[in-house]
Amino acid sequence: MVENPQGLKTIDGSTWLIEDEAENMKIQYRVDDVLYSEKSPFQHVMVVNSPVFGRMLVLDGIVQTTSLDGHIYNEMITHVPLSIHPNPKRVLIIGGGDCGAAREVAKYSEIEEIDMVEIDELVVKACQEYLPAVSGNLSDPRVNFIFDDGLKHVSKYKDHYDVIIVDSSDPIGPAVQLFEKSFYANIKEALKEDGIMVCQSQSPVFHLNILQQTYGYLHELFPISRVYTAVVPTYPGGMWSFTLGSKKYQEVNAHSFDKETKYVSQDLLQQCFALPAFLKDALSK
Amino acid sequence: MVENPQGLKTIDGSTWLIEDEAENMKIQYRVDDVLYSEKSPFQHVMVVNSPVFGRMLVLDGIVQTTSLDGHIYNEMITHVPLSIHPNPKRVLIIGGGDCGAAREVAKYSEIEEIDMVEIDELVVKACQEYLPAVSGNLSDPRVNFIFDDGLKHVSKYKDHYDVIIVDSSDPIGPAVQLFEKSFYANIKEALKEDGIMVCQSQSPVFHLNILQQTYGYLHELFPISRVYTAVVPTYPGGMWSFTLGSKKYQEVNAHSFDKETKYVSQDLLQQCFALPAFLKDALSK
Repeated sequence: MVENPQGLKTIDGSTWLIEDEAENMKIQYRVDDVLYSEKSPFQHVMVVNSPVFGRMLVLDGIVQTTSLDGHIYNEMITHVPLSIHPNPKRVLIIGGGDCGAAREVAKYSEIEEIDMVEIDELVVKACQEYLPAVSGNLSDPRVNFIFDDGLKHVSKYKDHYDVIIVDSSDPIGPAVQLFEKSFYANIKEALKEDGIMVCQSQSPVFHLNILQQTYGYLHELFPISRVYTAVVPTYPGGMWSFTLGSKKYQEVNAHSFDKETKYVSQDLLQQCFALPAFLKDALSK
Repeated sequence: MVENPQGLKTIDGSTWLIEDEAENMKIQYRVDDVLYSEKSPFQHVMVVNSPVFGRMLVLDGIVQTTSLDGHIYNEMITHVPLSIHPNPKRVLIIGGGDCGAAREVAKYSEIEEIDMVEIDELVVKACQEYLPAVSGNLSDPRVNFIFDDGLKHVSKYKDHYDVIIVDSSDPIGPAVQLFEKSFYANIKEALKEDGIMVCQSQSPVFHLNILQQTYGYLHELFPISRVYTAVVPTYPGGMWSFTLGSKKYQEVNAHSFDKETKYVSQDLLQQCFALPAFLKDALSK
């Protein structure tokens, strides 16, 4: 068994990506080809081809998104806030290097500016070239690619954005500060007086403490805070959470969803807020 | 690396259960102890202790249910049909050897008889002794344990049950006939004129063909057929499907759910029918 630092192992002549999950559990994906593999100043960036999930973006050995299910996460992190805000014009995406969130935001013709602030240019390059199922070879002129630190970018703006989407990786490595209260406070400042933010808040099963902390911060900072979930097959445990902070609006516009999507539907936009009993309970503490 | 037929391997001095999923993908669970391991006439039955999921029931090397999340599947397969039927008296569970479905059904005081027909007595014995988090050491006098073939049992009854719950394992090994149309036709006969059946219909992500086939059969056989989903972290892909066939009733009773549960809530009972766009599409073909 030969292993390299990116989690690839050769077992009986086949290549496998072995991902450590939630301690004491590992997922092994058979890998047919490694299409891209580079070390950026921030992390190791890899795109591999797997028979089950198709192409997969792997950062520091952790699967981030795949051809099979990348759309689920990207549709859910974008269409929920954009169906709550009645008139979004300026949208900021922090992270989102796979370009899938920007691609979904670009489906709204009324949006005039989409700023995408990703710290790692190599991620965007790899996904645009090797992961078109997720990035959609995004080339909308309203998208401004800004390769910078999301924290620094947000702190420069006041009363500027209608919707801010925090599409971060896990709270280890380059994304750790994107889970801190001071960051959400800066986001609140950067939003207009009726603005909405959303962030991914990890697995309610394996990282309930992070979801509770995130919800706690947004609950303190915003008049309206809500949690919703989606099922993302490649994330451990399947169930994934998102947390919204909103200054004014809270309900999804009924009967208005008309975008072409694979996972999101009008029903689902409204019903994703129905939480399992254990989760309701955990968030009411 | 030493392997035995039940999927246990010793790697660097630790024991792991290695489960093959959907070809070309494996999940490795660290195992602290093997609490029970016997070969029955039908399959290999094992209960192990794992640090992430607690105790796990493993049949022929495949994880069936765990202390951490067994309640999700069992609550969803029971409370949905029992919240649709206004007055269930006689309930049949086919399979359900972990006793979790019978435990949930027993929460309804108006139910008079709960027949549980499980082909493999060893599964019930193992779960009652080593998996109390799921089985709840079930000892309700209304539960009749019948160790027999579910197909044979069902074909003996006409116009008898209010609700039939098909809680089978995967469509390989002893459960393969529980996915056939003739079996569902017999279930229809065994149900009263306003009866309801439900079955687990596998992962919409990895076994969409089985869900489509099951929904197709129930759609042909019953005036009302509906699909709902839940998130079961230990099942591959997380998202799991259930299919209902009903002779008369279709709506969940609003505002009436009062059982003590960990996953199911009144909201969730109604909203579990909101399907992702790809699934709606796949079922309308």
